[in-house]
Amino acid sequence: MASIEEILAIERIDKDIYRGRAFDSALRRTFGGQVAGQALVAATRTVGADYRVHSLHGYFLRPGNSDHPVIFLVDRIRDGRSFVTRRVNGVQDGEVIFSMSASFHIDGDEGIEHQDPMPAAPDPDALDPLPDDAEDPVTRTLRREWQHFDVRKVPRDQMEFSDRHVAQQQVWFRHRAPLPDDQLLHVCTLAYMSDMTLLGSSRSVHPDSMVQTASLDHAMWFLRPFRTDDWLLYDQTSPSAGSGRALTQGRIFDRAGRLVAMVTQEGLTRSGVPAEIASIVRPGR
Amino acid sequence: MASIEEILAIERIDKDIYRGRAFDSALRRTFGGQVAGQALVAATRTVGADYRVHSLHGYFLRPGNSDHPVIFLVDRIRDGRSFVTRRVNGVQDGEVIFSMSASFHIDGDEGIEHQDPMPAAPDPDALDPLPDDAEDPVTRTLRREWQHFDVRKVPRDQMEFSDRHVAQQQVWFRHRAPLPDDQLLHVCTLAYMSDMTLLGSSRSVHPDSMVQTASLDHAMWFLRPFRTDDWLLYDQTSPSAGSGRALTQGRIFDRAGRLVAMVTQEGLTRSGVPAEIASIVRPGR
Repeated sequence: MASIEEILAIERIDKDIYRGRAFDSALRRTFGGQVAGQALVAATRTVGADYRVHSLHGYFLRPGNSDHPVIFLVDRIRDGRSFVTRRVNGVQDGEVIFSMSASFHIDGDEGIEHQDPMPAAPDPDALDPLPDDAEDPVTRTLRREWQHFDVRKVPRDQMEFSDRHVAQQQVWFRHRAPLPDDQLLHVCTLAYMSDMTLLGSSRSVHPDSMVQTASLDHAMWFLRPFRTDDWLLYDQTSPSAGSGRALTQGRIFDRAGRLVAMVTQEGLTRSGVPAEIASIVRPGR
Repeated sequence: MASIEEILAIERIDKDIYRGRAFDSALRRTFGGQVAGQALVAATRTVGADYRVHSLHGYFLRPGNSDHPVIFLVDRIRDGRSFVTRRVNGVQDGEVIFSMSASFHIDGDEGIEHQDPMPAAPDPDALDPLPDDAEDPVTRTLRREWQHFDVRKVPRDQMEFSDRHVAQQQVWFRHRAPLPDDQLLHVCTLAYMSDMTLLGSSRSVHPDSMVQTASLDHAMWFLRPFRTDDWLLYDQTSPSAGSGRALTQGRIFDRAGRLVAMVTQEGLTRSGVPAEIASIVRPGR
């Protein structure tokens, strides 16, 4: 498997045109977090160093083919004094597979300050890593895809549930190896990681359901600086599911209790079509 | 003030090109909910009747001039079998003021089903309407702008606070007069309404702060059918504020306890610039 630094090292083709390489993957369809992370790198390359990304909103329009590179076309839709906005289309074979906008804010603005308290959660070092031999072939394949990351689910009997939410899940995750002190690398790595496990929060209250899942959209807000090579708590809820779709939300805290990012994602959770599931995993994996 | 039906009755200029009229407004800058609602009508006009909007993601790029109409240019970025996606740019004087994508899903898909329980809240009929004589000129002006809507804030001493969230606010709202049985009208009316009061949840724990506020982005998920001429509970939190921005989220329930929509919005909450605030309200209003 490629490292996250290789995945995010997109190649410049021309001004505002980049190519994200294809890597050996256990998935037929490109992992959504990879497309989102590469798209965010492309957007960032066109923005001055005084601006930091604070949000992105993307739609997954078509499944990506993991054997092929993705071309990222950046549109400079606004260059303001305080805010800069970019739109990025990820293209394969002439078709847009991912369409994203991202907004950048100049450093140094100040105003009101607050954040949600970090919820109670057991220490990540006391939890088991995700087993590599999950029964579900999609899960097993995803875990192989994410082997550079340590992902530990909080067991349901160790969670403190809130009565505000029907479906809740907590996951600790981090990049296993140390990464350089480059906030941009950590931000784009978190865009990759944020597509991990979140949609699963919708299935936490339907453990025996057979549903076809796929990310439909992805929105993220970057709130405070963080490192992805130290443990982050991904506190997830699924406020609603119905009509073949589920909505999920995640708050990402660092170990010091800082709320560093928020994520909202809607996914397809359509009653199961085994042939569709088989199409995700390569034969023999 | 124009009715919501007049506001949403955008005019077709040509295929995929629409014009949203300007109306007499107490605001210099076009109300964000008006732009979002009109943009959603434009997107919907280009999509078959078998598909329903389930989400939208927009960025407010520049303040709109409320004296001028907005031209909406629709881009048909995907026509799939199950999902249809549209991008809409709202343009004034050659510049994009609002850029939105919206996704539509065919009727009839099924899968897992759940929703968050409705939080406790006092009966809306027992609450006072927002007073028309607020001290803050921006608030006073917005209330005049929204005069066709009945908006009632739950007093803080009648709220049940969750210890998961630092900043919480509850608002009941509805369109005062009955509206036709047209789900699309109710959906676009809720897009308009969803920009009301939400950013205020971030100031609920900083009541004396002087900050310049403006919507930066707006994302919405439509979960179940609803009516906007009956009471809806807008249960709001602000998970984070810092660096001159605040993130806010809202869950919208109907009186029967159905979770009908979710909203996420980030806003500017930069330390106050009185001249900026004065620029929002017209002289003499």
